[in-house]
Amino acid sequence: MPRTTFESELEGLQNDILRMGTLVEQAIHDAVKSLADRDPNLAEKVVKEDDVADDLQMEIENKCLALLALQQPIARDLRTIGTAMKIVTDLERMADHAVDIAKVTIRIHDQPLIKPLIDIPRMAEITKSMVRSALTAYVSRDVALARKLAAQDHEVDHLYNQVFRELLVYMMEDPRTISQATHLLFVASHLERIGDHATNLGEWIVYAVTGSREDLNR
Amino acid sequence: MPRTTFESELEGLQNDILRMGTLVEQAIHDAVKSLADRDPNLAEKVVKEDDVADDLQMEIENKCLALLALQQPIARDLRTIGTAMKIVTDLERMADHAVDIAKVTIRIHDQPLIKPLIDIPRMAEITKSMVRSALTAYVSRDVALARKLAAQDHEVDHLYNQVFRELLVYMMEDPRTISQATHLLFVASHLERIGDHATNLGEWIVYAVTGSREDLNR
Repeated sequence: MPRTTFESELEGLQNDILRMGTLVEQAIHDAVKSLADRDPNLAEKVVKEDDVADDLQMEIENKCLALLALQQPIARDLRTIGTAMKIVTDLERMADHAVDIAKVTIRIHDQPLIKPLIDIPRMAEITKSMVRSALTAYVSRDVALARKLAAQDHEVDHLYNQVFRELLVYMMEDPRTISQATHLLFVASHLERIGDHATNLGEWIVYAVTGSREDLNR
Repeated sequence: MPRTTFESELEGLQNDILRMGTLVEQAIHDAVKSLADRDPNLAEKVVKEDDVADDLQMEIENKCLALLALQQPIARDLRTIGTAMKIVTDLERMADHAVDIAKVTIRIHDQPLIKPLIDIPRMAEITKSMVRSALTAYVSRDVALARKLAAQDHEVDHLYNQVFRELLVYMMEDPRTISQATHLLFVASHLERIGDHATNLGEWIVYAVTGSREDLNR
């Protein structure tokens, strides 16, 4: 493979990652929208489209392994490919969490919501914007932008704690809310994890550009 | 690097993975024991030792990247290295879930338990044995053993559903149990995830040996 072909392969890899990231962003959006609107059809769509993300992950991983085998990439290129393999793992976990949220919709869509959803959609907004920032930082190799993800993750964590406390109060005041409230607790916990994975993306981007690994949460 | 050195590097990689897997097995054990015994010191130990697993993960990943760069491994060796990178990701997540369980101990250790823990320790037993089987299958390249992990994962899922229902009943019957019961729900959910990651290990082992990727849950 001549060098220029290698470079166009790397570019293809980058495009695949952008495509997968965009799918994940959409999955988070649709999953939380399906819950707020109690729309089981939209939730089913999230579950079904997870196969696309899974296939894309496998395709990207196979491409990375082939590039590593056929080339002997050095320093920066090696990090780019290694990073791609880690990034798709985090993206895939985020998609799985979106699926888990959609499954909650499917379980509870025929019940009235025990409370209007406010903080959960806000958590979803922030995590979606984290995915968007991570993808931008990835393409533009923007270390400062990647490092900013940790601050947004703190916001998500803060909202999570708020939702947790609030749902506990609901359950204690009215035991009939317990079943649905536990499902909503898990939804909030999935969004909190999605925030963690988005922060991981930031760490991998910093590594891809600088070659050193930082713990953005410290 | 002459071929024999490469082979001894691969062997070193395998030993590192075994070491990390053993740490994870111990972390699951200690985390659930700390909860059952309400032992905050043991829980703190689990939290602290997670740094060892994190460092080991980074060391293994760096070794893999170096091996891929310095050699041009083909087919089976390439899969071995690619698989090692994926296996450590799953092991690291399992360690994180063990830490999350230990953090529950730290939060609730001064309360009496609302119920004796039976199914949660059983879930821990099965997931630990899954990690053990996965490590054995990894070393002996035993595809049949790797495939068996899916059946054990079903058991874990079944226990999870049982714990979930049971804790809901506790909460509904006595609202004073709600706070602790939600923590125990999350503990069960962490163990359920650990089972998923152990199943992933099985999939990676099958891939390392056969070169084809199977979804063991289907």
